[in-house]
Amino acid sequence: MPKPHGPAATVTRRAADRLRAGHLWVYRSDIESLTPAPDSRELAPGSLITITDSRSIPLGTALYSTASEIAARLVTREAAQTREAYLQQLGERIEAALLLRDELAPDSAANNAARLIFSEADALPGIIADRYNSLVILQLLTQGTAQADVRRVLTEVIREHLQPATGTLTIIERPDPRIRELEQLDAPSPEPLFSASATPDLTTIFTINGLRFHYDATAGQKTGAFLDQRLNYAAAAAHARGTALDICTYQGGFALHLAQRCREVTGVDASRAALEVADRNLELNPHLPANVHWIEADAFELLREYEQQGERYDTIVLDPPAFAKSKRAAASALRGYKELNLRALKMLRPGGTLITCSCSHHVPLEDFTSVVAAAASDANRRVQLLEARGAAPDHPAVLTLPETTYLKCLICRVD
Amino acid sequence: MPKPHGPAATVTRRAADRLRAGHLWVYRSDIESLTPAPDSRELAPGSLITITDSRSIPLGTALYSTASEIAARLVTREAAQTREAYLQQLGERIEAALLLRDELAPDSAANNAARLIFSEADALPGIIADRYNSLVILQLLTQGTAQADVRRVLTEVIREHLQPATGTLTIIERPDPRIRELEQLDAPSPEPLFSASATPDLTTIFTINGLRFHYDATAGQKTGAFLDQRLNYAAAAAHARGTALDICTYQGGFALHLAQRCREVTGVDASRAALEVADRNLELNPHLPANVHWIEADAFELLREYEQQGERYDTIVLDPPAFAKSKRAAASALRGYKELNLRALKMLRPGGTLITCSCSHHVPLEDFTSVVAAAASDANRRVQLLEARGAAPDHPAVLTLPETTYLKCLICRVD
Repeated sequence: MPKPHGPAATVTRRAADRLRAGHLWVYRSDIESLTPAPDSRELAPGSLITITDSRSIPLGTALYSTASEIAARLVTREAAQTREAYLQQLGERIEAALLLRDELAPDSAANNAARLIFSEADALPGIIADRYNSLVILQLLTQGTAQADVRRVLTEVIREHLQPATGTLTIIERPDPRIRELEQLDAPSPEPLFSASATPDLTTIFTINGLRFHYDATAGQKTGAFLDQRLNYAAAAAHARGTALDICTYQGGFALHLAQRCREVTGVDASRAALEVADRNLELNPHLPANVHWIEADAFELLREYEQQGERYDTIVLDPPAFAKSKRAAASALRGYKELNLRALKMLRPGGTLITCSCSHHVPLEDFTSVVAAAASDANRRVQLLEARGAAPDHPAVLTLPETTYLKCLICRVD
Repeated sequence: MPKPHGPAATVTRRAADRLRAGHLWVYRSDIESLTPAPDSRELAPGSLITITDSRSIPLGTALYSTASEIAARLVTREAAQTREAYLQQLGERIEAALLLRDELAPDSAANNAARLIFSEADALPGIIADRYNSLVILQLLTQGTAQADVRRVLTEVIREHLQPATGTLTIIERPDPRIRELEQLDAPSPEPLFSASATPDLTTIFTINGLRFHYDATAGQKTGAFLDQRLNYAAAAAHARGTALDICTYQGGFALHLAQRCREVTGVDASRAALEVADRNLELNPHLPANVHWIEADAFELLREYEQQGERYDTIVLDPPAFAKSKRAAASALRGYKELNLRALKMLRPGGTLITCSCSHHVPLEDFTSVVAAAASDANRRVQLLEARGAAPDHPAVLTLPETTYLKCLICRVD
């Protein structure tokens, strides 16, 4: 078989098998040889590169990163895809991603926020786009996608698709500092990539499940709210009652939903800035019947203290940040989940509801369920698992890439 | 520690550890000694028996079976529970189970069928109760529960709780032939345990998700419809479009839901009797816009034939019966799932939807997802996992008893 034109990487048999089984990543440790040499000008950061197995049989074309541990992300099963063909395909895939979101959760008075593009899950590795009402936030997370031509195609296709619905659309790119460092990316321009307005407003109010939330493109830990929890918020509200505790409430996502059904809701977070937004979000929804208040505290410390004081609740939500940022951290993450869940279980009144989440990629559903079961056994509580939920469908997973499944949300009745 | 009064079984350390971790079953192979001897009159089928570890520390009281491989099922963590206390607790747990169903899916014009009692998941091992409109179907699945006093308590509590809503309530017991043989149970009386009518009707029409279905307590493979799929039926309908194929449609559950959104629906089942009911169910819902027809065929043969003929669909449902009835059968079950899913994936048009289910206890979600991913890779199709669903919440699981999680339903977008 003749060698493909242009840059190419030969990968290990293990990597080739994984790619053939539908995986999309090539780790740097799996690259056996590179043509041209790694320091060549032809192998610029973000180049398109053909991946072949050790017998030179092509496996597809990937975006190459000179910095990340994931050295290449497959964008097509065709060899030697040109930049022109890549951009053409990019436009088509962006449009397909947007059409899927229209089908899954049509824009409505109750819901005008969604993840529009979710990287590998939309065959658009390295690209994330979220919509909050009239604002679209782009994240370009790899050397291959943090490129002017990619920005241009994204901006064009999103503008054409969404502007009729939003009227005053603004598209802006926001960096993820951790990824920027990993991939050695320049800071994106703070100017919007597009705005229908001459004086674009980088804040907005968006609605999910009929509740209103602030979004500020100039602040926030993540790109903003946790849209992946949208249907879990609604499910939690359907099961909630009485007095509720929302641990790691961030900007009040679960707390405000619980407030639709509960008498009293306490939202806890370690970040004062997040709680200030939560309180402004509460003001946006004056119809909520519950008495809601916020406590700035560390989740572990507060639960320890409240449990020892004999505080009791009818509904508890645990939605901590990802404890396990790596495979190595999974064991200590499980200890963290165990402690939080054990304390929460002890604090629930008989017949109470525990809504317990994990967004750690490295803690699979089975392990998370086991750890909550172990906590139930230690707390001597009988627990019925009513629902095992994942991310909302606008955050799909790649079936052949288990790494893309991450969010778990168990809804439990505790006797 | 003094020996508890009454019959007692000492179990292995492994079994004791499992029970302490929240499990509820004692396998016969885990019993080290029985007092009195197994053939004694005091150890009648279905007796209450104290379970102790090898140091005579009591682990609780269980219902003893002289026949099943699961020799004892824990009903309380207290030792030496009397029959009287057991019946008292039984009544309270039945009431708690019914209250939970009222909360989860209140009786309405759109939904008047639900699983009321789900064995271990409601702390009522060996008891299942399903409601279809005005009919309640009991299954007493162990020697401990197929008893006159248990029947009496069940009938009383269910009647008091439900009759105000149903008006013309009838409660009837139906045997499961396989379990009857395993547990060596007598056939239950064909007469209703209770009926508000002097001439009780053992057929009814029930409604789920606004669709009407026949139920006949004198016929059917299972106790009737697959109520555990209720919310998956609704989710499938939300994603379905175009032309649809429903494999193992049984009495048309998925097919009728797909018919709300599709142009054409083909329901396939190997049972002519099931399809006759499916067709009568279709007649009950004359407003459905789709053209629906039924094919009596083996799922594997039909898919093989259709795939080779180049038939194409926009939506395919796979809902086969449990392939893996035992752990040993899991490997061949996975081969069966692989073949069905591979053929279905090949037959889907680009942008089509696969709704693929497994109700095998012995095939966990992770394995089922892997096998569908392998099929996707073989079929060379890119598959987005939109939703990973389980049984409806009126079919809860016991968190500490993984065996009680069984239904998996993946909703996939196939490019």
